[in-house]
Amino acid sequence: MGYPGTDKPRKAGLRPPRSADLVIEGGTVITMEAGNPLIRDVRIYISEGRITDIRPIAEGPPLQECRGEIVDATNAIVMPGLVNGHTHVAMTLFRGFADDLPLKDWLYEKIFPAEAAFLSPETVYWGSLLGCLEMLSTGTTCMADGYFFQDETVRAVHDSGMRGIIAQGILDFPAPGVPDPKENLNVGKRFIEKWRSFSDRVTPGLFCHSPLTCSGKTLVDAFEISGTFGVPLQIHLSETEEEVDEIRKRYGKRPVHYLDRLGILSENLIAAHAVHLDDAEMARIGEKRVNIIHVPESNMKLGSGVSRIADMLKMTVKLGLGTDGCASNNDLDLFCEMDTAAKLGKIMAADSVFPDAETVLRMATSGGAAALGLEKEIGTIEKGKKADIIVLDPDSPHLCPNYDPISTVVYAANGADVTDVIVNGRLLIRNGKCLFLDSGEIMDRVKEICKQIAAFGRSGDATCGS
Amino acid sequence: MGYPGTDKPRKAGLRPPRSADLVIEGGTVITMEAGNPLIRDVRIYISEGRITDIRPIAEGPPLQECRGEIVDATNAIVMPGLVNGHTHVAMTLFRGFADDLPLKDWLYEKIFPAEAAFLSPETVYWGSLLGCLEMLSTGTTCMADGYFFQDETVRAVHDSGMRGIIAQGILDFPAPGVPDPKENLNVGKRFIEKWRSFSDRVTPGLFCHSPLTCSGKTLVDAFEISGTFGVPLQIHLSETEEEVDEIRKRYGKRPVHYLDRLGILSENLIAAHAVHLDDAEMARIGEKRVNIIHVPESNMKLGSGVSRIADMLKMTVKLGLGTDGCASNNDLDLFCEMDTAAKLGKIMAADSVFPDAETVLRMATSGGAAALGLEKEIGTIEKGKKADIIVLDPDSPHLCPNYDPISTVVYAANGADVTDVIVNGRLLIRNGKCLFLDSGEIMDRVKEICKQIAAFGRSGDATCGS
Repeated sequence: MGYPGTDKPRKAGLRPPRSADLVIEGGTVITMEAGNPLIRDVRIYISEGRITDIRPIAEGPPLQECRGEIVDATNAIVMPGLVNGHTHVAMTLFRGFADDLPLKDWLYEKIFPAEAAFLSPETVYWGSLLGCLEMLSTGTTCMADGYFFQDETVRAVHDSGMRGIIAQGILDFPAPGVPDPKENLNVGKRFIEKWRSFSDRVTPGLFCHSPLTCSGKTLVDAFEISGTFGVPLQIHLSETEEEVDEIRKRYGKRPVHYLDRLGILSENLIAAHAVHLDDAEMARIGEKRVNIIHVPESNMKLGSGVSRIADMLKMTVKLGLGTDGCASNNDLDLFCEMDTAAKLGKIMAADSVFPDAETVLRMATSGGAAALGLEKEIGTIEKGKKADIIVLDPDSPHLCPNYDPISTVVYAANGADVTDVIVNGRLLIRNGKCLFLDSGEIMDRVKEICKQIAAFGRSGDATCGS
Repeated sequence: MGYPGTDKPRKAGLRPPRSADLVIEGGTVITMEAGNPLIRDVRIYISEGRITDIRPIAEGPPLQECRGEIVDATNAIVMPGLVNGHTHVAMTLFRGFADDLPLKDWLYEKIFPAEAAFLSPETVYWGSLLGCLEMLSTGTTCMADGYFFQDETVRAVHDSGMRGIIAQGILDFPAPGVPDPKENLNVGKRFIEKWRSFSDRVTPGLFCHSPLTCSGKTLVDAFEISGTFGVPLQIHLSETEEEVDEIRKRYGKRPVHYLDRLGILSENLIAAHAVHLDDAEMARIGEKRVNIIHVPESNMKLGSGVSRIADMLKMTVKLGLGTDGCASNNDLDLFCEMDTAAKLGKIMAADSVFPDAETVLRMATSGGAAALGLEKEIGTIEKGKKADIIVLDPDSPHLCPNYDPISTVVYAANGADVTDVIVNGRLLIRNGKCLFLDSGEIMDRVKEICKQIAAFGRSGDATCGS
């Protein structure tokens, strides 16, 4: 494996290889199917990337009739791969580069200068590949990403075997890889055209950075382009109070009403953060079936506020869960994010009951899949769905006893408990070992890049945290 | 290893075995010494349980002159073992037994009945040993514990090789193992007498459950007994608003002022939670040098509130960090607790700057040691201190890059990254493997016990969560 050094799309026929037939045998299966969340001691049959059958082990067919590999999950927990609804995956490059700073210093004195100096096709490729490796290793099989040099993120996602909605960042300012903002939508459109038929694991799309950094016209145009190609539009929404104030000053309305006036509230919109919404905004989001991605740890670390997920769920808002990029979290572990989401929701509502473990697990699986428009394909373990499945080993001191597997995965497990990962029917991680990616090479490449970023940080252009 | 089946204290001479001489070589050492937090490429020499020297590798002496084992920490992060300032370790038995319930139902309908039915010397021994195994595996080398049947927790801590302040629970109600509340202080006194000369790793003590469940006289007597033996007194303080209201109703004062009137505010008091303190209470806590243990995840999960650690630090309150028991967390991983403490502190103060990574790391190491009165012995890596040291492998995707080791351990690492654990100079975990405990047997014993607890939960006496 090496950096491709070319911008030609790879042929879909070459990667991924034809999915091997696969059987997962035994254990406790958290299906996340409504009404049937837990089943035990079954065989899950996988062919051509999909779950073709789920049957009690007792019923057979005998194992010798199964072609291909058998994942022994006896005593294990089997569950849908997690869905990370909002990230900027290449930002692994900036994990721990700048912490504990005032928000504006963090962004304008550290992150933006470092991005301007170091983002390139090569750095985005390796940063993204590292992020994919981290996500797969910790049980995330699908992500929604928005960033720059996204050809390279597509390649990294594809090379890693993961699934993702990979969106080209749109800003009405010069951006990494898009020096002329007048070209931003053309770049975005070409990006979608280039990758939309590339792989059934990759959906290209657009990511409008925010209603402050994109004009109304840009937002409307991006929404139309997305609609034309049938891909979702991602956006940051009301992450900070300052942003809400600024929108009100500029447009005379709160952000959700402003987007409503533009006509872009729809189930084709995926809005991340949604921290500072009032009741009327939440109600409108619910009516228009806009998808919201809750990003609790990043919101906490940046001191931005806490999104009112209990209230949103009452208003039938479609909710997913995301980690955000590594510069503000600093990891991509959705198990930890679920734990935090449940606990943060409880403490903000002074309510030990809600959100409960199953609710946050839904946000990270079936609900997250629905928020990305992928609910027909992924998010549950059921016949006909794509086989995006993970296996956890509960035979660790911190997971013992295991009275309730849903409690165990939400409140006690973390990504290190994941032993096996299957995406699109292909076994990518087995017994904790990544089968197709060279972790050592990926980390070495990122360390090389980050040596330069650290030196830059120390140089005074942007001072490194250490 | 088996359950001892006797209440005779084991002879200190038998366990632990005389500490082997040991050298930790290389890596980045987070010393937590004031003014010298990070040093690199040194050898840490350990003899008779203590750090005897720290020297640059370049200076020697050559390795062949070192007796005993060498832990190769090249490229690793070496840091003080973490200090869990508040737990009820045997409650691993109830991990995931009852989640997402109203606080009173959780306590009175689930936890108390299950404790009454299942706590015994045998169950407390195995539950505690599991908790010690989990803590050691995740980098915690010392804890402050308060519970019942504490002879068995002492044995478990001792058998595990960990360090701890193990306190007998004091309640003015019938309690597990202490059916007659009139005997509670006698039981506590005998407990201290029995174990105080047993081991240099175990400090026995008393744990008054709370100012509501112990009378003023009990609190004062417990404080005096503790003072007589020179051991700290632990207590739950102002965990919920209801508790504060009830104390005010009963005693006409807020809890801290009530304890002040009783004369028990002192540096010999370790108060856990301290969620609902007003400014005057915090100031008084600071003046009297009372030790506070912040327990963020449990407070979140039970919806109790958030302790104002930023304000307390301004008032020079001595702060440690704790997990609480597994029934309300649900794990004992202090790395996750540090991450949560920093992020929760930031979001509550709407301040992305504070508490920063180093502050929460201090709470879990040197500050935590000081809060337990152990600052002369543990909490930093420096010459003369007891050798309670852990090693982390940063060569994992989620810890890459590693610009700043303190950021890495607080914001990105979790307990699964710990590879080596040394307590009192003795290597207990090497390359992730526990050298002296039989994890399989411990988990099997706990699973056996928990099968009965689960059946009890389902029986209607206490309904299990699953």
